[in-house]
Amino acid sequence: MKLHELLFGKPLRATEQESERVGAVTALPVLGLDALASAAYGPEAALTVLLPLGAAASGQVGVLTLCIGAVLIAVVLSYAQTIRAYPNGGGSFTVANENLGRTAGLLAAAALCTDYALNVAVGISAGVAAAASAVPALLPWTLPLCLAILAVLVVVNLRGVRDSGLVFLGPTYLFLAALFGALALGGFRTILAHGHPAPVMAPLPAPPAAALALTPWLLLRAFASGCTALTGVEAVSNAVPIFRQPKVRKARFTLVCIAGCLLALLLGEALLTRAYGIVATEPGATGYQSVLSQLIGAVAGRGPFYYVAMSAIFAVLALSANTSFADFPRICRLLALDDYLPPGYAHLGRRLVYSNGIALLAAVSGLLLVVFGGITDRLIPLFAIGAFLAFTLSQAGMVAHWWRVRGPQWRKSLCLNAIGAVATFVTLCIVAVSKFMEGAWITLIFIPALVVFFAGQRRATERIWRERTDPSPLDLTNLARPIVVVPLQVFDSIAHKGLRLALTLSHDVRAVQVRTDDLKLDDLGKSWNALVGEPARNAGLPPPRLVVLPSKYRAFLGPLLTYLRTVFESTGNSPITVLVPELVRRRWYHFFIPSRVTMLKVLLLLDGGPQISVLSAPWYPADEVDESTLSRYGRRSWNRLRKLGRRPA
Amino acid sequence: MKLHELLFGKPLRATEQESERVGAVTALPVLGLDALASAAYGPEAALTVLLPLGAAASGQVGVLTLCIGAVLIAVVLSYAQTIRAYPNGGGSFTVANENLGRTAGLLAAAALCTDYALNVAVGISAGVAAAASAVPALLPWTLPLCLAILAVLVVVNLRGVRDSGLVFLGPTYLFLAALFGALALGGFRTILAHGHPAPVMAPLPAPPAAALALTPWLLLRAFASGCTALTGVEAVSNAVPIFRQPKVRKARFTLVCIAGCLLALLLGEALLTRAYGIVATEPGATGYQSVLSQLIGAVAGRGPFYYVAMSAIFAVLALSANTSFADFPRICRLLALDDYLPPGYAHLGRRLVYSNGIALLAAVSGLLLVVFGGITDRLIPLFAIGAFLAFTLSQAGMVAHWWRVRGPQWRKSLCLNAIGAVATFVTLCIVAVSKFMEGAWITLIFIPALVVFFAGQRRATERIWRERTDPSPLDLTNLARPIVVVPLQVFDSIAHKGLRLALTLSHDVRAVQVRTDDLKLDDLGKSWNALVGEPARNAGLPPPRLVVLPSKYRAFLGPLLTYLRTVFESTGNSPITVLVPELVRRRWYHFFIPSRVTMLKVLLLLDGGPQISVLSAPWYPADEVDESTLSRYGRRSWNRLRKLGRRPA
Repeated sequence: MKLHELLFGKPLRATEQESERVGAVTALPVLGLDALASAAYGPEAALTVLLPLGAAASGQVGVLTLCIGAVLIAVVLSYAQTIRAYPNGGGSFTVANENLGRTAGLLAAAALCTDYALNVAVGISAGVAAAASAVPALLPWTLPLCLAILAVLVVVNLRGVRDSGLVFLGPTYLFLAALFGALALGGFRTILAHGHPAPVMAPLPAPPAAALALTPWLLLRAFASGCTALTGVEAVSNAVPIFRQPKVRKARFTLVCIAGCLLALLLGEALLTRAYGIVATEPGATGYQSVLSQLIGAVAGRGPFYYVAMSAIFAVLALSANTSFADFPRICRLLALDDYLPPGYAHLGRRLVYSNGIALLAAVSGLLLVVFGGITDRLIPLFAIGAFLAFTLSQAGMVAHWWRVRGPQWRKSLCLNAIGAVATFVTLCIVAVSKFMEGAWITLIFIPALVVFFAGQRRATERIWRERTDPSPLDLTNLARPIVVVPLQVFDSIAHKGLRLALTLSHDVRAVQVRTDDLKLDDLGKSWNALVGEPARNAGLPPPRLVVLPSKYRAFLGPLLTYLRTVFESTGNSPITVLVPELVRRRWYHFFIPSRVTMLKVLLLLDGGPQISVLSAPWYPADEVDESTLSRYGRRSWNRLRKLGRRPA
Repeated sequence: MKLHELLFGKPLRATEQESERVGAVTALPVLGLDALASAAYGPEAALTVLLPLGAAASGQVGVLTLCIGAVLIAVVLSYAQTIRAYPNGGGSFTVANENLGRTAGLLAAAALCTDYALNVAVGISAGVAAAASAVPALLPWTLPLCLAILAVLVVVNLRGVRDSGLVFLGPTYLFLAALFGALALGGFRTILAHGHPAPVMAPLPAPPAAALALTPWLLLRAFASGCTALTGVEAVSNAVPIFRQPKVRKARFTLVCIAGCLLALLLGEALLTRAYGIVATEPGATGYQSVLSQLIGAVAGRGPFYYVAMSAIFAVLALSANTSFADFPRICRLLALDDYLPPGYAHLGRRLVYSNGIALLAAVSGLLLVVFGGITDRLIPLFAIGAFLAFTLSQAGMVAHWWRVRGPQWRKSLCLNAIGAVATFVTLCIVAVSKFMEGAWITLIFIPALVVFFAGQRRATERIWRERTDPSPLDLTNLARPIVVVPLQVFDSIAHKGLRLALTLSHDVRAVQVRTDDLKLDDLGKSWNALVGEPARNAGLPPPRLVVLPSKYRAFLGPLLTYLRTVFESTGNSPITVLVPELVRRRWYHFFIPSRVTMLKVLLLLDGGPQISVLSAPWYPADEVDESTLSRYGRRSWNRLRKLGRRPA
């Protein structure tokens, strides 16, 4: 098995797509990880904002959680209507695009793209923060750990949807079991102790309260941070097509399960945080411990249960990024199909996933992790704006949809979607205003910029399509054989093979030696006639000319381009094929070798002008043939092939 | 002026190399920055090791500095002999290679390469640490700042040696002025106060001393860390050729100036650290402040002088990485000329610097910064081993040199080099043993691995050269015109131009449409005869065949490769040219678009087999022509050219 098959799995037929579809048990981890994992960082984000209150912070969590829970219920009921109306996938982009117009659709798409990229960074960094809470020695290695996890996610996702579902099944259910276990145990102890349980392991002491009083402003900011707990619930409505039949019912059931678990977790956490008087610690500082780590420590002590639970939290947070990997490439594909992104993002890869979208997401979130040093808290203010903008556009689009379509029970659906739209819009405003200075302005600039980019991309693609579309039949007037120019520095087997090929293509072959002065090159002029001229004349072919060009700046390309232009003009606009004899080395580490030849080919294509075409004549070292090539050709056949053109059999 | 000329400067002729040479005033910043800047992190590194001693730490600094100073003097006297013996550049690699044999040379080269890469990372991160001492708000942005500085250094260095000297002139002399000013003022106050001056701004309180007593082991470890202050002094001997005539005298003078300044700085710092009772703070933690920041604050308070001095320290530390950028590519070139590295590292770039070496150094040190989070203290244990290994090999090589050559005054030189060799070897052992567990083991594994890599690279290059060297004249028997295969998905202007070119090259042209099922492609079969077949027959040419290939895995390349093999076998091993009609987009941001065509070309070259050559036929959108191309061709000419082959004039 080849390395890349081991890593990425065997290629799948398009007809295997049905067997890649999933039921609710598998869908819950794949689509719910994001939403469920946010139970681990949402409350923490709210408590971090309340840090200046000191010990009084934990008292405010209950009210905040009730507000967040109310928004959650509105959003979920609203999305259940969307799933019914859009059984083929009603992502915010589709819904806003169809019902509110193109600009709204692009805005939703831009918001979702931004949010998915941020979600990867936030999920992974929160996971590493959880791990560092349990094992403080990991704290200095935050960023390398984040990047390593990102790499694992990319590999898993390039393998395809079902495989990733299977990988995430275990950690998700373990996470739910551990958290509900801890909450039940804590709740039981709280009741026994009449609301004031004694912690098994004391939570960290609250910092002294700042002079700051509890203001509505502080509560609003905490609510805005806490709302990050709601990100991810849109994933199900976006991905209805990945469900097995009956997909609407399965999708709705999955959505309700996810939302129910999330709500229960948030409420349970709020109650216990209050009962045990837990407050946040300064993120990124030494001695940092996550709220969940303190809570589980307080309920169950630092025994095996603690470490199992923290491992599950770590795994689920780190893997929650996976929801983005499932959905981001799908949005990219929709955008690419409408020409808002280059066509490469619409191609299904060998494992039925959109590999280019995955690569793009990996690059962007990797950059975010590096720039923000892998610390969750710095990313939170940028986050959630995108999610709530997409929520709002989607629900508003659904209101328009029901008003227009008026199917069965449309009034009820319209009302539920309207409530959802208002709730998410209000939350959006709160988040945007209260987090503006802390970084939300970046998102608020970035999302419209992305919309402009999408629109520009579409204009460029349409312009080029208009230009390249040409219904007239092949025009073969003024056909001229190209002059073949062969750049070479020495006369060796590689040049030998190139010249043979050149002589089959044209009667006007010119070899060019660019004499850069930093390499001790032999002047080919002395031996040219004996080595090339005579043999060509003997074979009845016009002998290739040799042109030796001086190079003042040690540059290879400049003199060559000037020469090509001279040839072009002196021959009356004859087309030119530049034949590049090339030593091709095929091992993976050879990609890291800077290659003058590759540079030459790229620059000829970019700067050569339209009359130039570039022909690579590869030559392979004998013992750098790998097994896959050999199995296609056989070793004897390959060796014979290799010598072909250099020394005929 | 084009963007890349603005950034990287105009290209330079090889004959301009002499005017790029420098005198001592310019050489001091270029070659001395590294050595001088280490005065800012060496003592700090030693004090950090002494942290467990609490307030008693500052008392030990004097003895440590005297030991370090003694090693410095031995090293400098030794290198002065090297400069005399090797006026064309006596880097450790050259000296060890010529006098101790190939393996010793490679070991020295590997040690230096490692050390230069580490020096970039350490210098930049120490600079950012200095900035964060003055402006604590920068602390969370350590890593992004480090990477931004690295980017600036890369751009400056791609501009060439003299430009970088000019950029660094100001900060270096400002640094020396500020530090000597602070030391003089502090010394004056100390004398006035009979050794117990009152600090203007009190240094940070010492942490409580751990139960640990002052052990010789702790002192050895502090000495080993402090020895990082000596890194960089070899730069002058390495770079003698960049001096103007008389270069030996200028180089020696520069070396003595650098060493003198460094020694004075180290002693002055030691005295004042002791007088003011300054200790280190935990690196990376909140409240971190560098030793120099405390010292200058204590001497002069946090006035304008403090901020000027800290700016100079920041600039010099950040730019000290520049010495590596001057020398690392030079060592790469020496290695490449001896085939230990690919030839790309020997090519002088357009600004007379070795651009590939600069790029490699940037990549490696960028990776180090990311992995270690941009914190100096974590890199220090890896550091210095390489430097002292190279020092030792170089001095030992010089001993062998004098013993063999015996020129004038050879006995004196031999003695000085022998003293240097012993001093650096003892230091090397101390560093390796005392820092082994903290990370030195990484370096101790990496350096020999690099030597093995160099040797393997040379073997591979020699093997390929033996294979490609072929003194026989051009063999033109069995010459066959290639079959031209044109992959196309639709029949548009791009395909039109490609087919025209194909028909000039061969009488056997086959168009191939791979019908991947995720794109709604028209079957070209229906219109092929009317669009292509008829016109070709009318022009008296054999009509190109159309082959439609099904694709089960949506893959493009697999079916194409299988088809090519079939063609190859069914035609009796005929060579095949795959003509790829290509939409070429030329703006810089188009490089980020994933391109199926580029992928196709690369994979055909890697996996196609030796009978396949790959021809790119570019097609350019009308309005993506930039000004430089237009100036070469003129807009009308370009537009005419562009249409050439698509619709003849």
